[in-house]
Amino acid sequence: MDSRQRLTQTMLKLLRAQGLRATGLNQLITESGAPRGSIYHHFPGGKEQLAVEALHAAGELTAAKIRGAATGAKGSVGPLRAFAETYAAEMRESDFQQACPIGNAVTDAAAGSPAIRDACSDVFAAWERTIAQLIEQAGFDKKESRDLAEFILAAVEGALILCRARRSIEPLMRVTRRLEAMLAAAKRRQT
Amino acid sequence: MDSRQRLTQTMLKLLRAQGLRATGLNQLITESGAPRGSIYHHFPGGKEQLAVEALHAAGELTAAKIRGAATGAKGSVGPLRAFAETYAAEMRESDFQQACPIGNAVTDAAAGSPAIRDACSDVFAAWERTIAQLIEQAGFDKKESRDLAEFILAAVEGALILCRARRSIEPLMRVTRRLEAMLAAAKRRQT
Repeated sequence: MDSRQRLTQTMLKLLRAQGLRATGLNQLITESGAPRGSIYHHFPGGKEQLAVEALHAAGELTAAKIRGAATGAKGSVGPLRAFAETYAAEMRESDFQQACPIGNAVTDAAAGSPAIRDACSDVFAAWERTIAQLIEQAGFDKKESRDLAEFILAAVEGALILCRARRSIEPLMRVTRRLEAMLAAAKRRQT
Repeated sequence: MDSRQRLTQTMLKLLRAQGLRATGLNQLITESGAPRGSIYHHFPGGKEQLAVEALHAAGELTAAKIRGAATGAKGSVGPLRAFAETYAAEMRESDFQQACPIGNAVTDAAAGSPAIRDACSDVFAAWERTIAQLIEQAGFDKKESRDLAEFILAAVEGALILCRARRSIEPLMRVTRRLEAMLAAAKRRQT
């Protein structure tokens, strides 16, 4: 990894764990091992620009996980459950420190930075498109797929907050089961 | 209001707008108008204790809003919609600065403070009980009411994040409509 990638990865990890406000340039330098001058060399806009890049990287990573869950899902464990299980494992392994970086950034930095807010909004929109595509492929019409995708994203983002407050993956697993049931019922109505 | 109440209200406002990490004692003093010595006089545990108290106050306030929405709801606008409309109005009036103080605190302070995390977890549990009671009164059995209450809380918390990212109340309104439809369908299954 070059220092640009190391900085982006470190920023992403810190965004998930503690949000943007608590993340200072010194911690970024220490944890990434990148040379001090490299932040402004690669990111002339400083911490904000680096954060926007990390948010987009996080967006890509999670979109890939969603698609991966859809491909890997087999039999009774659908894509949603497969995705929730991946995410739950990450939360447990990080002792519930690794939350959604986008949700964190909206909460702690979006008010002060239009660039951060736009990046969060873009990533949410990209996730919704990814989820909507999968739903459409499962036989739903376009509008219903888009609506369902937003609903699923909201429920999962909220479930992650409950998981973190309770240090338990159960809220996410219960919410996911109910979303699956809802999708199945919506499917029966459409066909 | 005495200085204790002024401090708690100011902390609550700042928790909603910017979270705990960004909130310093100086800002609390300036915005509340409380005498400097009063923080440690009323809250020997300092900022953390004041935050815990503000989170519990926020919990009570919102629980009262939920119950109020249930009482005030008439005709085709159910309690959920009534609650969402109240919340949406607050978000718009604050230019999308006033988010859920509990969601904010989980994101930005729960990892570093077990006391904050416990307060958030307690408030979420209290909201779930309030919502579950209303659902039970509408004719659902106990277990289903609890499950639905957790799901509704997750979906609404997540919707608030989407609203803030997009500076729009639409995600909350769409999510609420779908939750109402889900409740109506669940009701038909139970009866």
